[in-house]
Amino acid sequence: MNDRVKQFTEFRKRMNERILEQDNQVVRRFFALDTQTYKDGALDVKTKEMLGLVASLVLRCDDCVSYHVAQCREAGVSRDEFFEVFQVGLVVGGSIVIPHLRRAVDFLDQLEGGAEAAG
Amino acid sequence: MNDRVKQFTEFRKRMNERILEQDNQVVRRFFALDTQTYKDGALDVKTKEMLGLVASLVLRCDDCVSYHVAQCREAGVSRDEFFEVFQVGLVVGGSIVIPHLRRAVDFLDQLEGGAEAAG
Amino acid sequence: MNDRVKQFTEFRKRMNERILEQDNQVVRRFFALDTQTYKDGALDVKTKEMLGLVASLVLRCDDCVSYHVAQCREAGVSRDEFFEVFQVGLVVGGSIVIPHLRRAVDFLDQLEGGAEAAG
Amino acid sequence: MNDRVKQFTEFRKRMNERILEQDNQVVRRFFALDTQTYKDGALDVKTKEMLGLVASLVLRCDDCVSYHVAQCREAGVSRDEFFEVFQVGLVVGGSIVIPHLRRAVDFLDQLEGGAEAAG
Amino acid sequence: MNDRVKQFTEFRKRMNERILEQDNQVVRRFFALDTQTYKDGALDVKTKEMLGLVASLVLRCDDCVSYHVAQCREAGVSRDEFFEVFQVGLVVGGSIVIPHLRRAVDFLDQLEGGAEAAG
Amino acid sequence: MNDRVKQFTEFRKRMNERILEQDNQVVRRFFALDTQTYKDGALDVKTKEMLGLVASLVLRCDDCVSYHVAQCREAGVSRDEFFEVFQVGLVVGGSIVIPHLRRAVDFLDQLEGGAEAAG
Repeated sequence: MNDRVKQFTEFRKRMNERILEQDNQVVRRFFALDTQTYKDGALDVKTKEMLGLVASLVLRCDDCVSYHVAQCREAGVSRDEFFEVFQVGLVVGGSIVIPHLRRAVDFLDQLEGGAEAAG
Repeated sequence: MNDRVKQFTEFRKRMNERILEQDNQVVRRFFALDTQTYKDGALDVKTKEMLGLVASLVLRCDDCVSYHVAQCREAGVSRDEFFEVFQVGLVVGGSIVIPHLRRAVDFLDQLEGGAEAAG
Repeated sequence: MNDRVKQFTEFRKRMNERILEQDNQVVRRFFALDTQTYKDGALDVKTKEMLGLVASLVLRCDDCVSYHVAQCREAGVSRDEFFEVFQVGLVVGGSIVIPHLRRAVDFLDQLEGGAEAAG
Repeated sequence: MNDRVKQFTEFRKRMNERILEQDNQVVRRFFALDTQTYKDGALDVKTKEMLGLVASLVLRCDDCVSYHVAQCREAGVSRDEFFEVFQVGLVVGGSIVIPHLRRAVDFLDQLEGGAEAAG
Repeated sequence: MNDRVKQFTEFRKRMNERILEQDNQVVRRFFALDTQTYKDGALDVKTKEMLGLVASLVLRCDDCVSYHVAQCREAGVSRDEFFEVFQVGLVVGGSIVIPHLRRAVDFLDQLEGGAEAAG
Repeated sequence: MNDRVKQFTEFRKRMNERILEQDNQVVRRFFALDTQTYKDGALDVKTKEMLGLVASLVLRCDDCVSYHVAQCREAGVSRDEFFEVFQVGLVVGGSIVIPHLRRAVDFLDQLEGGAEAAG
């Protein structure tokens, strides 16, 4: 894994543990529900992850975008499909989405670079 | 068509014409691009309309939600699938999405009621 | 109850039932979690409802604002306290909050008018 | 004045009075500051009102848009200029701005219709 | 003070001075009003700071969250109370709040670590 | 150019090229439309760039703000005018705009420092 991917993954893991060790049932249930949301159902995992990605993109949440980019990639979303998800996010959310799109593509490049390097 | 669906459709049509009769090339091109966005491509129309729906839901735009609910229904999205799109929107966007979810389900009910009444 | 309060309450109740009769576990759990969030805990109900109100106000969700205005009133929030919640919402969220503030005060007036009329 | 313009203007006036009669200094000062913001300065009133309009449009606040459409019109913004403000709002904010653009153009039409009818 | 807290505090202080040395009365008055908002009144400072925190959290403004986390801590908000503020923010604002929650908890940890180290 | 300006400019340029080399017509057309939006028309470039700046500010997009700050400066916006654009953004968008305002002023300072250093 390259630096940006590694740093993102480690901070995310460490803070999730820190949050969940606190005895707050609503927060814990929310985290569990968040995981359950993207499980296979009437819609398959790939479709749901693309839904999560476009929602994160129009709400302009870089960490959420990075997470769903990684999940989408694992679920088999191709680069052409990624760009069609991006195109929906861009047209719905406007030019303010562009900086997040830049970082999304950069993150995807780094994931793929990591995969190549590890391959 | 029942009243809410009819009123929405007519206002939308009338004002789109009003906007496009203005000689503003950027606005016209944006409208054309918006239409192009949901055409069949690497992702099919049904998937793209679901992406448009979830993006509209988390951005809490009732008219956009109504429009994509109607488009999704034409593209063959089932009620179970609709609710999985809604579940992603709800978990990503939080409880502030609920009022829009209520109106989305009401609009879907009215579309289906209209279909039954016309059937 | 006057008309605006009555209409809001009935639509809310009817659509919540409609949504929950759908067999979608994530949506149902989210609704249950939403209710659990405002229960008495380390913070009391009154404080939590004020938190819910200011969050709804800065996110500019009229229905959420109406709901929390009613809940705050039942929890004993005074008019002076309401306006200090509003002042935080207004300064944090800016002048785009003002139209929602107008409707919040109108809703509160109608709740109190209804209380007086029923008294 | 036609109905939509009249209803908007009256509710706005009535609720502003209701809010300002409450003895809350922060809220009152905010309202005063809001008025001061659009006064002639390094930038003229017309430019400032256009800034207020585009900000309201991308934040998708219909009442704020209506208010600044009326103010811009009084400050001499032409229809071509209005559409260039709209084009910036549309491209920056994306297709979710479109429903608000429809209502903005409808409001402008009604203001001009009122002007013609009164002329 | 550790690095993240120190860097945040210094940049904030330096830029506030830079902004206020500019002769713009509206900006200066807004900054004064912002300070006045959280003073003791019908609601106490602790409650108002929690309102400021939850508003900042749902609007996903990391710097605002950091600031109000520090203010809340000075006003005596306990860790259990912090997590109930977070739970309201999380349920109202949805999973897009999670990355900001991570950074809020990290900032709180660093504040407490700094307090321990200094103690 | 100093570091922050340079880093921003290079990442922006590199990723725009990366995005546009992908064969996605909607994304490419959106980028072209974005450029066209700020061309001289019924409103001049300076006014349009100020509109882009205030829209970016209230939507709290740091990269968009940086970009339009640079464009505004090239179009001849003075420091007093900048602060009147900021004042509209601040009052419309509220105190959550302040952290973005700090970074906007810092970016402007760095642009001017760069200009002085290069002069």
